[in-house]
Amino acid sequence: MAKLSKILIAQGGGPTAVINQSLVGIALEARRHPQIQAVYGAFHGVRGIVNQDFIDLGKETEQNLLEVAQTPSAALGSTRDKPDRKYCEEIFRVVQAQGIGALFYIGGNDSADTVRIVSDAARAANYPLRCVHIPKTIDNDLMVNDHTPGFPSAARFVAQAFMGADLDNASLPGVYLGVVMGRHAGFLTAAAALGRTGPDTGPHLIYLPERAFSLDGFFKSVKETMDRHGRCVVAVSEGISDAKGTPIATTLAADVQKDAHGNVELGGGALADYLGKAIKDTLGLKRVRGDTFGYLQRSFAGCVSDVDQREAREAGRAGLTFALDQDRDGSVTIHRAPSGPYAAQYQFTALEELAAKTRHMPDAFIAATGTDVTPAFSGYLAPLLGSGLPKIRRLQRHSVVATTNR
Amino acid sequence: MAKLSKILIAQGGGPTAVINQSLVGIALEARRHPQIQAVYGAFHGVRGIVNQDFIDLGKETEQNLLEVAQTPSAALGSTRDKPDRKYCEEIFRVVQAQGIGALFYIGGNDSADTVRIVSDAARAANYPLRCVHIPKTIDNDLMVNDHTPGFPSAARFVAQAFMGADLDNASLPGVYLGVVMGRHAGFLTAAAALGRTGPDTGPHLIYLPERAFSLDGFFKSVKETMDRHGRCVVAVSEGISDAKGTPIATTLAADVQKDAHGNVELGGGALADYLGKAIKDTLGLKRVRGDTFGYLQRSFAGCVSDVDQREAREAGRAGLTFALDQDRDGSVTIHRAPSGPYAAQYQFTALEELAAKTRHMPDAFIAATGTDVTPAFSGYLAPLLGSGLPKIRRLQRHSVVATTNR
Repeated sequence: MAKLSKILIAQGGGPTAVINQSLVGIALEARRHPQIQAVYGAFHGVRGIVNQDFIDLGKETEQNLLEVAQTPSAALGSTRDKPDRKYCEEIFRVVQAQGIGALFYIGGNDSADTVRIVSDAARAANYPLRCVHIPKTIDNDLMVNDHTPGFPSAARFVAQAFMGADLDNASLPGVYLGVVMGRHAGFLTAAAALGRTGPDTGPHLIYLPERAFSLDGFFKSVKETMDRHGRCVVAVSEGISDAKGTPIATTLAADVQKDAHGNVELGGGALADYLGKAIKDTLGLKRVRGDTFGYLQRSFAGCVSDVDQREAREAGRAGLTFALDQDRDGSVTIHRAPSGPYAAQYQFTALEELAAKTRHMPDAFIAATGTDVTPAFSGYLAPLLGSGLPKIRRLQRHSVVATTNR
Repeated sequence: MAKLSKILIAQGGGPTAVINQSLVGIALEARRHPQIQAVYGAFHGVRGIVNQDFIDLGKETEQNLLEVAQTPSAALGSTRDKPDRKYCEEIFRVVQAQGIGALFYIGGNDSADTVRIVSDAARAANYPLRCVHIPKTIDNDLMVNDHTPGFPSAARFVAQAFMGADLDNASLPGVYLGVVMGRHAGFLTAAAALGRTGPDTGPHLIYLPERAFSLDGFFKSVKETMDRHGRCVVAVSEGISDAKGTPIATTLAADVQKDAHGNVELGGGALADYLGKAIKDTLGLKRVRGDTFGYLQRSFAGCVSDVDQREAREAGRAGLTFALDQDRDGSVTIHRAPSGPYAAQYQFTALEELAAKTRHMPDAFIAATGTDVTPAFSGYLAPLLGSGLPKIRRLQRHSVVATTNR
């Protein structure tokens, strides 16, 4: 068993609805081990480490920690810094000077890479430091993992958003485009499919970064859907790219910037606006609306999967246990029980297996049409969304014969 | 007591999270009155009436109606048609031919105006028709009413969105702009203030259509906030206008269209993108993000105020009762008990008092700075948001002394 008298926790990258669960999972589990005498938190991730901007989590009450766990976004603050080797060596020097025995970094694949480099630096200096990465990303794009904490809650937001948007579109028919986060992996956009509440309901089309996007194919599919249903709800990943792999948003930004002599720079809502206008012009449709879900989908207070909450907590707890019990560094990875009802299992995986790598939607999750998911994907995601999803009901539509007596 | 053997219900304008509560309130109350033998619903509002696209709501099970009531968006479908006198006379002819005794139209101020004109047509034809308007609008801009069904749930969405967006912004500091619906009335944007979860938390600035917007003032206020807090969360109404009353979004669209030789048409996300870029350029800030809440704020499934649900149901029920008991047409209006704990009261108000009129935020709700609300507004809105709002907690930040031993 490793000797850890002082541990340090930090959070990196985009915050999620459950990233604090992992923080609290580590902090509370540490209280069960008398050898751990100090639990520090660094403010704003790796930057907080090099700046020694620390707080003593051991002085937090258990009640406050339990309530912080329920609070979305990173309670310790986060950072977009992606440390190079020199930066990581600076991290190591602070960790060494503070006498830290274990470092826990809660983040995505870049954070895993940071942990890997710090781990190398400690080994090179022959300093006994346990380096642990705890998974977190709404993009669900970490290798090895069945899924990652943060994704189920963001997926729930996307599903609920499309549930409502589809009902809205059914009441005032037209085309609705919802642009969802995920530049390289389509998991979060695909979650829109779980917003379907009956046959013939939307989203009718789902565009993922894993499949080449063409405007002509898009127009054709929207037209077919309009012909069949009289309306069309579309989920679009912000990362959709053409056959050459160039993101549509990039092409679009370049085009418009040229047209406007540099006066226009396209921001968050541009892709939805652009696709909406293209449909209006090409298909001659009147009612076309678009929303870019933006930061709402990762930060919204009050839309969270209880399964995600429990797993994020457990991932933190498991990270501490692995640090104590195993004589190596690694990343906590989440796996699905191979049979029986849904259950998560936690393993300790070598950092190299996921550091700086990106996982994409497997082909088995994408329909042959390229504009939908498969039942396998729905089966994969459904148990992660948690309990208490909104119940949607329609009128039975017993029709009334029209009178001609007018 | 009026003789109503057959009644007709329709829903108009933008859907809300609770518009079906009012529909079900009428339909279920009707079952308690044996003289009402038929309850029809028209699909897609007034257009469904002239097309005689009716269903028999009497054949729906009570259980299904109760579940439809919980479902957001208009179960009967809606319409953007704003009928003129001729259209309204056509509505009246259908109503007369079908032998309808009472018409219930659930909608905003335009719907109230339609009800008023149909009421006039019936009176002119000496046909005994009871015309009732049931209030509904997320904009909260109906005269006479203390507030309108649909607004509290949309306000809850906006408050929860800003709660999360502020925590997100605190973890990765910068400027965040959230653009909220409400072209003429600022109530929904003002609801962002209820997303504050502690001193110094955002939204730090709130821009309403009731106060003239100037870019210079905006830059100054953002800069001051950045200087004070190191970050800045802003709520902006889509309807903000300059001192001449011209909407900023309109000016912006015209400008960009000219620059781009007609190639660019600005859509949903344009105002956020434009203001974000203006801040970046003028203040030299790096991290500036913007979201346009769009249709999410009125359609999101699973974010609803239980107070709003109960009041929307009651407004429908009260409408039927007024139709039976009073010998006149009118609109159900919601009032606040003048003293004691929060309670809603329902009155029957002449259609002329609110038809086609718009209510704005009263001065008493807007802070003298023009970029915030008053405590009176927060006190007004708080009881409407309902139970079970997310609880936000922060770490206590017991600091750790940095080591110089490096």
